[in-house]
Amino acid sequence: MTQSFMAAEVAEIPQAAARFLDRSGAAVHDAAAALRALDPWLAVTVARGSSDHAATYLKYAIELAVGIPVASVGPSIASIYGRQLRLGHAACIGISQSGQSPDIVEMMRAAGTGGALTVAITNDAASPMAEVSAHCLALQAGAERSVAATKTFVTSVLAGLSLLAEWRQDDGLRAAVADLPRAFELALKLDWEPLSARLARAQQAFVLGRGPAFAIANEAALKFKETCGLHAEAYSAAEVLHGPAAIVQARFPVLALGVADAALPQLIATAEKLAAQGADVFLTGGQAKGATTLHSVAGLHPLVAPLVLVVAFYGFVESLARRRGFDPDTPPHLRKVTETT
Amino acid sequence: MTQSFMAAEVAEIPQAAARFLDRSGAAVHDAAAALRALDPWLAVTVARGSSDHAATYLKYAIELAVGIPVASVGPSIASIYGRQLRLGHAACIGISQSGQSPDIVEMMRAAGTGGALTVAITNDAASPMAEVSAHCLALQAGAERSVAATKTFVTSVLAGLSLLAEWRQDDGLRAAVADLPRAFELALKLDWEPLSARLARAQQAFVLGRGPAFAIANEAALKFKETCGLHAEAYSAAEVLHGPAAIVQARFPVLALGVADAALPQLIATAEKLAAQGADVFLTGGQAKGATTLHSVAGLHPLVAPLVLVVAFYGFVESLARRRGFDPDTPPHLRKVTETT
Repeated sequence: MTQSFMAAEVAEIPQAAARFLDRSGAAVHDAAAALRALDPWLAVTVARGSSDHAATYLKYAIELAVGIPVASVGPSIASIYGRQLRLGHAACIGISQSGQSPDIVEMMRAAGTGGALTVAITNDAASPMAEVSAHCLALQAGAERSVAATKTFVTSVLAGLSLLAEWRQDDGLRAAVADLPRAFELALKLDWEPLSARLARAQQAFVLGRGPAFAIANEAALKFKETCGLHAEAYSAAEVLHGPAAIVQARFPVLALGVADAALPQLIATAEKLAAQGADVFLTGGQAKGATTLHSVAGLHPLVAPLVLVVAFYGFVESLARRRGFDPDTPPHLRKVTETT
Repeated sequence: MTQSFMAAEVAEIPQAAARFLDRSGAAVHDAAAALRALDPWLAVTVARGSSDHAATYLKYAIELAVGIPVASVGPSIASIYGRQLRLGHAACIGISQSGQSPDIVEMMRAAGTGGALTVAITNDAASPMAEVSAHCLALQAGAERSVAATKTFVTSVLAGLSLLAEWRQDDGLRAAVADLPRAFELALKLDWEPLSARLARAQQAFVLGRGPAFAIANEAALKFKETCGLHAEAYSAAEVLHGPAAIVQARFPVLALGVADAALPQLIATAEKLAAQGADVFLTGGQAKGATTLHSVAGLHPLVAPLVLVVAFYGFVESLARRRGFDPDTPPHLRKVTETT
């Protein structure tokens, strides 16, 4: 059997990450210097789809590392409603693989006009989004042919974390970012067979996370839908007991994405509650009563650990798609570039 | 058969709204004057569960009416990660029915300490959240005994819209808000039998919206889960074609919540695409090829129309729950107040 584009692109993640780190030092340095000079009061993000999950990751990372609030701004505010936001003294980070989507480009242009320092994170440094932005971090990920974004998701978050490490001149985060290609290699060797066996024929699932790992839960739920036809939904581990748990009946599959950070004890407590009500719970990063622990890479900085986890997930979900009889490269009804207005 | 608490509380919405408008003028006036004096550069919201959907509604309303970005801040930033955000010159709006959840209270206290103007929206004016906030808008909704919040959701959004109308001294919005009790009465008379028949035995559904109606889509999806055991998931009409549409097979139920605003043409276009790929699409607020139009109240201000729509939805979903054999008052596994840490 020929390898899928998705499998090839997931396997390429460590090299793509190394390439970004190798080539992007100057662009990261310049954008970080501009951020330090501005010392923004807030950041806003503009993105859609998988890129919006990368933005959610960076929201948590910026809030935790910089201590300023981060707002996700729907591109529709500019493109549909025609509203110009006051963004003086704000940093505006746009994320788009193609850099083409007209509403994202329009929102970045409006943000710049509104007074924000704009940074485009895109795989195409010559794209319209890069053109209307003050700074551009080019992903260096090479062509992505699978509809399901993988290496561009990982390098988008990597670009944001690199920027954050330089912005804060944080040596711990710098070292953790520099080590990511090695950590991604380790992640690709992990085996999540117990989860694969459980999901081989499942119709529904929940994916839980908290903090930056909540962004990864959103990304995982989307990939389950687009590559496996599995109706997975992401929840913050803090939210799931507020109402969604009503549909968690016996044997309902739950994937709890834990990493070694301050939120882990609460995630484990939630996993144990759901297991006690009969759910089939799978957990990374720790042990929970009644749950199956999945392998993960240990000893990581808490702001990079969820990114390493998604690489393990990508390897897993590509093989699950094939096990369920789907071609991971060609989800039904989807095109690579969705031009939203 | 005895009427459920939920049915009684939904029926009470017009009176609860009238009570809020009648009693809260002074509190709204004071908070609005403080907001005008501050002229904030951004707003942040703090909430969980249904209240977080109310916050999402107010995010769109504030971005559109005031033109400042609104960030949803996870209470975990303070409670779990111990991070103090810089919130000088920000308005911080906390929403909680009970005002008790320790993480929400902690985040509001931290926001005040961080320099924000804090406004609590809660049904208990003597709650810890009200106590740590500079201003309190009391919902006046009376006791809510159903686990599924309905009248407190509606009055939370109403409180926020009242505040917005006074903040901006916007006569059009003031008149629209004052008219809401009448509009809610009309909404409760609507019949969505075609959707009820389709969902009587469904397992999954999507609920779509855009702008403030996207907040209502989130609220509707949560209510489908907690009262009907139906795995409904909400999507922005702009996002659903980016990946989630992969699981929309023939006869997949889709509820597209449209109102007469600038986003309606794009919502209709999305509804038509999903209908063309075989989905069973139900639409409010307009006509789409291949979709069934549901009744709604016409002639409303675009910033209140989605709130009127959720009242129609609440009446509908309570009867759907009973049709599916659920007791809407006692969802499996849930308690009314979830104390998140």
